[in-house]
Amino acid sequence: MTGSSKIYLAGPEVFLPDAIAIGARKKELCRKYGFTGLFPFDNEVGPEADRVDRLIFRANVELIEQSDLGICNLTPFRGVSADVGTVFELGLLTGLGKPTFGYSNVADDLLNRTLRTGDVVRDGDVWRDRDRMSVEDFGNADNLMIDACLASQGHPIVRVAAGAGEQFHDLRGFETCLQQARNEIDIRPRRRA
Amino acid sequence: MTGSSKIYLAGPEVFLPDAIAIGARKKELCRKYGFTGLFPFDNEVGPEADRVDRLIFRANVELIEQSDLGICNLTPFRGVSADVGTVFELGLLTGLGKPTFGYSNVADDLLNRTLRTGDVVRDGDVWRDRDRMSVEDFGNADNLMIDACLASQGHPIVRVAAGAGEQFHDLRGFETCLQQARNEIDIRPRRRA
Repeated sequence: MTGSSKIYLAGPEVFLPDAIAIGARKKELCRKYGFTGLFPFDNEVGPEADRVDRLIFRANVELIEQSDLGICNLTPFRGVSADVGTVFELGLLTGLGKPTFGYSNVADDLLNRTLRTGDVVRDGDVWRDRDRMSVEDFGNADNLMIDACLASQGHPIVRVAAGAGEQFHDLRGFETCLQQARNEIDIRPRRRA
Repeated sequence: MTGSSKIYLAGPEVFLPDAIAIGARKKELCRKYGFTGLFPFDNEVGPEADRVDRLIFRANVELIEQSDLGICNLTPFRGVSADVGTVFELGLLTGLGKPTFGYSNVADDLLNRTLRTGDVVRDGDVWRDRDRMSVEDFGNADNLMIDACLASQGHPIVRVAAGAGEQFHDLRGFETCLQQARNEIDIRPRRRA
């Protein structure tokens, strides 16, 4: 492969007021490990455009198609699970055959977080929420499709206990993913991309 | 194409006590429209197996690989957004080039649902949550990656206002997706699958 591998940087930090600054920090860390980071905001769309949402979608899909691999910030977002936009991108990257890495800035299990909502009761062998939906009890950080997608590639989701107020700014888990990617990209053949 | 097209049936109903019965109803509706439904529980894994979660992941990915298209139940699940397992599968199906259809049994916008959590404040031109993350205001049912993924294929997410207690059992939106799929599969060439 000529040039540095390109990493799509998926995560809900695009919703923060300082999204551009965080993207710049992530891209700087990518350079430290010999990668080029592609941040969703790199493709900015003017607010005057028609159907801005579909243009952002198209721009993000194009960045993903250009990338060689992805790193996903799977920190719980407005609830017990990860941001669905990021999870969609994890699935898309996987379907396109691109290696993906992931981290969460909350160390606790999905089950424990869901229990803390107070809306869960024991029903025989399982925990159920107020809609009687069972809660997964595999010790995973999130839904098994997310955890197993990463674990089956040989690098389980990285969990970090970020400090209060630092859940969307702490980059230790992100840097661990970069180290994983550096180790793997150097030794395994490039997959369909 | 010989035989009936296979549809992967993605959705959080696998967590319900009557998951098997709902899967059977969905598969019966698939037959009505000339399709074969593949329900995640078709590949059951014994509880004695080691790392059951990873076996379920592998079994679901194999069903998705066998399918020709997907229908995703994107009804909000434990919060304002869809089930992340289903959203992962929407991304995976899309990355594999399989047409996907989707419905939600909640008709309201993501923004309105998020406003009702009470944790949102106005900040200049945007709404922000308690983490200062902006809330998308595109009139979409969920994160733009989900809505635009479906809209860009020519069939926006189907929204149905299900009755109280019926959000995970109402199949009207599912049947509309089957009608969309029937219309499209008959007229467009098969994509990479």
